[in-house]
Amino acid sequence: MKKVAIILSGCGVFDGAEIHESVLTMLHLEAAGASYQCFAPNIDQHHVVNHLNGEEMNQTRNVLVEAARIARGEIHDLDTLNVNDFDALAIPGGFGVAKNLSDFAFKGGDSTILTALKTTCEAFNQQNKPIAYVCIAPALVGHIHNKGIKATIGNDADTAAAMSALGAEHVNCHVDDIVVDEAQKVISTPAYMLAQSISEASAGIQKAMTKLVALA
Amino acid sequence: MKKVAIILSGCGVFDGAEIHESVLTMLHLEAAGASYQCFAPNIDQHHVVNHLNGEEMNQTRNVLVEAARIARGEIHDLDTLNVNDFDALAIPGGFGVAKNLSDFAFKGGDSTILTALKTTCEAFNQQNKPIAYVCIAPALVGHIHNKGIKATIGNDADTAAAMSALGAEHVNCHVDDIVVDEAQKVISTPAYMLAQSISEASAGIQKAMTKLVALA
Repeated sequence: MKKVAIILSGCGVFDGAEIHESVLTMLHLEAAGASYQCFAPNIDQHHVVNHLNGEEMNQTRNVLVEAARIARGEIHDLDTLNVNDFDALAIPGGFGVAKNLSDFAFKGGDSTILTALKTTCEAFNQQNKPIAYVCIAPALVGHIHNKGIKATIGNDADTAAAMSALGAEHVNCHVDDIVVDEAQKVISTPAYMLAQSISEASAGIQKAMTKLVALA
Repeated sequence: MKKVAIILSGCGVFDGAEIHESVLTMLHLEAAGASYQCFAPNIDQHHVVNHLNGEEMNQTRNVLVEAARIARGEIHDLDTLNVNDFDALAIPGGFGVAKNLSDFAFKGGDSTILTALKTTCEAFNQQNKPIAYVCIAPALVGHIHNKGIKATIGNDADTAAAMSALGAEHVNCHVDDIVVDEAQKVISTPAYMLAQSISEASAGIQKAMTKLVALA
């Protein structure tokens, strides 16, 4: 059975990992015959957003502690992830990717990413193990993979331009489909960058996880 | 298209709504051809649990505000739920059901439930509209339905005894199956009371939501 590491970026679309995408990633990995283990960085969130009204809350929350909610407590510090133990990697979306794992939400084409994340993703890549980036997570690929790496965040022109500035080649993609860079074994799907419903997000994530396990 | 109200009890298995069950409820409702709208009570959580280490945190969180994370912000105060607008009701599990929607976690067979929840569920029942209770949520049915209402939380003897003390008839059930009280249109499934994986939880929830929409 293939083992897949999942990196979460908190718990909630506006300041952490997108919850539906994270759960659908787990569901479709198991449906594809793989097992999974969740990880998250042990750092404070960039901020905490009240998901009812969109306002920032005067509170501090830790990315690992909050991500543990999605993982039902079964989660480890990203710093302990040993790439040798896994066959593939999946990164669900949510603003946490662009606020906690990187500063893409604020700096776009001038963004940087978390060192532990960069090191981990590069190690998967060097070992020829596939990585699936969901939703906004392809904003990370320019920092990790070779120039011209093909990936999608759907069809948003500004986000695509920022990705391109970081070295990726953006490919427009329908909500229920995936983009695959076969040479670098990188898979991406738009999910809630485009999805209007959980069913739409699920369709693309199902394809992405099936492909991820097939390439592992 | 049938419209289903979902009542959430926070965000996270140990102090709120179980996240996988909540997302799977949404997914399988849409797959069964229904739409959904989330609600939660606008009250403080009983407490906040660090899901990484299980310890209580010195923090206050609001059930509605946290549940909004699972609902991607698309959620309303339970007090505004108009039963006439919906064809059916679903309540995912998690300790939030037993700590926020009721005090079943602390008082078992002597527990009480939130008045707004009781009123809402009774109104669905009086209008002959079906209700699906997932995981620990069947602990509520004794407060809402007629004596002898059939429901399951899997096969835990102590929990079943507490349910019985509240007036329900507990029926043992396999993780991927459902129990249906046809007369009172009440459906239940064990989900993470028994599930060892998200796939197992999904199988029972899929059956439950398919039946819920069929009875609506």
